[in-house]
Amino acid sequence: MKVIEGGVCAAKGFKAGGVVAGFKKSNIEKNKKDLAVIYCEKECSAAALYTRNKVKGAPIIVTQKNLASTGGRARAIAVNSGNANTCNPDGVEIAEKVCALTAQSLGIDKSGVIVASTGVIGQKLDFAPFETGIPELVGKLSETGSADACDAIMTTDTRRKEYAVEFELDGVKARVGGICKGSGMINPNMATLLVFITTDANIGAAMLDKALREVNADTFNMICVDGDTSTNDMACVMASGLAGNAEITGENNGYAEFAAALRFVMTYLARETVRDGEGAKKLIECRVTGSPDEKTAKSIAKTVISSSLLKAALSAADANWGRILCAVGYADGDFEVDKIDVNIAGIPVCKNGAGVPFSEDEAFKRLSGDEIIIEINLNSGDRGAVAWGCDLTEEYVRINADYRS
Amino acid sequence: MKVIEGGVCAAKGFKAGGVVAGFKKSNIEKNKKDLAVIYCEKECSAAALYTRNKVKGAPIIVTQKNLASTGGRARAIAVNSGNANTCNPDGVEIAEKVCALTAQSLGIDKSGVIVASTGVIGQKLDFAPFETGIPELVGKLSETGSADACDAIMTTDTRRKEYAVEFELDGVKARVGGICKGSGMINPNMATLLVFITTDANIGAAMLDKALREVNADTFNMICVDGDTSTNDMACVMASGLAGNAEITGENNGYAEFAAALRFVMTYLARETVRDGEGAKKLIECRVTGSPDEKTAKSIAKTVISSSLLKAALSAADANWGRILCAVGYADGDFEVDKIDVNIAGIPVCKNGAGVPFSEDEAFKRLSGDEIIIEINLNSGDRGAVAWGCDLTEEYVRINADYRS
Repeated sequence: MKVIEGGVCAAKGFKAGGVVAGFKKSNIEKNKKDLAVIYCEKECSAAALYTRNKVKGAPIIVTQKNLASTGGRARAIAVNSGNANTCNPDGVEIAEKVCALTAQSLGIDKSGVIVASTGVIGQKLDFAPFETGIPELVGKLSETGSADACDAIMTTDTRRKEYAVEFELDGVKARVGGICKGSGMINPNMATLLVFITTDANIGAAMLDKALREVNADTFNMICVDGDTSTNDMACVMASGLAGNAEITGENNGYAEFAAALRFVMTYLARETVRDGEGAKKLIECRVTGSPDEKTAKSIAKTVISSSLLKAALSAADANWGRILCAVGYADGDFEVDKIDVNIAGIPVCKNGAGVPFSEDEAFKRLSGDEIIIEINLNSGDRGAVAWGCDLTEEYVRINADYRS
Repeated sequence: MKVIEGGVCAAKGFKAGGVVAGFKKSNIEKNKKDLAVIYCEKECSAAALYTRNKVKGAPIIVTQKNLASTGGRARAIAVNSGNANTCNPDGVEIAEKVCALTAQSLGIDKSGVIVASTGVIGQKLDFAPFETGIPELVGKLSETGSADACDAIMTTDTRRKEYAVEFELDGVKARVGGICKGSGMINPNMATLLVFITTDANIGAAMLDKALREVNADTFNMICVDGDTSTNDMACVMASGLAGNAEITGENNGYAEFAAALRFVMTYLARETVRDGEGAKKLIECRVTGSPDEKTAKSIAKTVISSSLLKAALSAADANWGRILCAVGYADGDFEVDKIDVNIAGIPVCKNGAGVPFSEDEAFKRLSGDEIIIEINLNSGDRGAVAWGCDLTEEYVRINADYRS
């Protein structure tokens, strides 16, 4: 597996782009792109996962309907930032108009369009920026357009999250690439934030859906910035088949190769998402081992990286491991507290559920870096899990105190 | 029901006090009291609730054992702040020594002592400060000692939380009063933080336990500061019986009168706890009505007041109601999103799940106060619930970044 350039356009057949359409006045002033299209020259298999929030954005509803009507086939993705098109009486109508206009401009069927929105909830989404933006964007689509598309879907994100790999698949070269956005309102449950993956692997919709679900459970479902599950989370993948491998129809070697590449890309994007968490300065990785089952390991890993108190302590490079034990204690699952060992940044701080002496100076030095690894061994089995989070800083509060203005 | 002075000593038979014992060096430098005793001249019925965190402080284990061995009878409470005595190999031994010394100094049985600790987790608790502190304290106990005891149990708290009422009980005057501490690591599950209630009502241990459970479910279990459930949470109540009412042995009128007084005191203390949440400037009260059942109403109310994004928005007086709908959407329960109405500070912002126009200026003005009421009507039944939280400010992060230092 080789990391390559090209992001969401690295796979054969895909073009993308982003423009300033003006969904917020300030976007025009700051020349901030806010409308993106990803397009494939060939009809693709497609699969998507959606937020489990009961309040769902209108684009989620329309995309679910479109993919159901085509039986998992799609040609394009249209996304705006700056407005979530959620809790609006005319939201579904607007999202359908976006699909129709995108389809018309590209000369494809409107049910082949995946639509997504991200931004403020509960503000009417004006259609006018689409009317000028979509045709302009369609004229600009290119194989080097991944960065522009990525810029256009960002909100409070401070950096692009794009990635691609090339890998051997059934004797041919294939590619998986993607972009995502997300920085706050991040505690995915099922699917998450906005994640757009493309591949030229030849794989049918059912197997694509299976791979996406499996990989998502270990990647985007294992991150948390602030415990808030968004109304507009969506992760989708489109497969053009242009790599030329024999179609993946079951769990054969090709499936394993494809799933490994997808996992590589989605793990990278998930980690980058929390590294760019609102106000975050540090990535926190929690590795749980020795668990009697995977569910307990996942629950503990995710509970630890979600603890506000631990996140605040780590922002100051404070090895306050008692807060790790405290978080472990309110995670779901059955385990014996007095068997637990904890290392922070490689330093043993707790053995058999009780503290052991360690050098605070050395700990402070190691925790001052931009990645912190917490290892928790339950010493009660052989299953494990990993979760990723970020530190909690004053900047998080500043960002979210005046998000709408 | 009449609010009276005296806090945890308002009920007949109780004395209390607090001293500087020196569990942290800085406590001596700052003359910060850190050891408290509450004592009753007569043996009391007693009941307590404990944290559901699987990691439990040693004092929790010892108190559970003591109350079990006496069948719900107690004479005194001994509490230190500055060290949680949790995750220490010799924690239980130290907690038992505290009970023995307190009992010896007071001339009572050691199984009649309720012991509690709060502070840093995973640091050895030195016994020496108890050796000098307990005898000094026992010599100083007084009927006006509630404030000193309250000062001694505070950690990051910025204000005393004490309250008492006098009420009519079965034709006689009775009193319920209490003190509590808690500011961070607050997301009680079952019992919470440290809450010490006293009463002179004549009520047996079983009915006292029942009243405490019922009232706690609607008060301390309905607050959240930061989503972290502490290892040392404890709420306990001692009843001296000195008011002279006929003993409450069942759910008669006397029980209802007593439970109402207990609810009044515990509601006050719970609200004051979140008002004094770490870094908090505003109290947020979320009232859910029109729910098909109480569980759904409680889940929604608690999820809303726990949302970091909403808490950050309210710190800046921003009526970002989309974040309320988003939080409602990931609460447990079955309800129809398009029937939901939301008012913020009396201003309708959402009808039938969609936004309605409102004056942002008026909203900003109303949200700039120090209490914000959010009303959510599900329009799907007649059950309701109330939860209390606080805003999230940069100060929260500052406090928790360097708590140990």
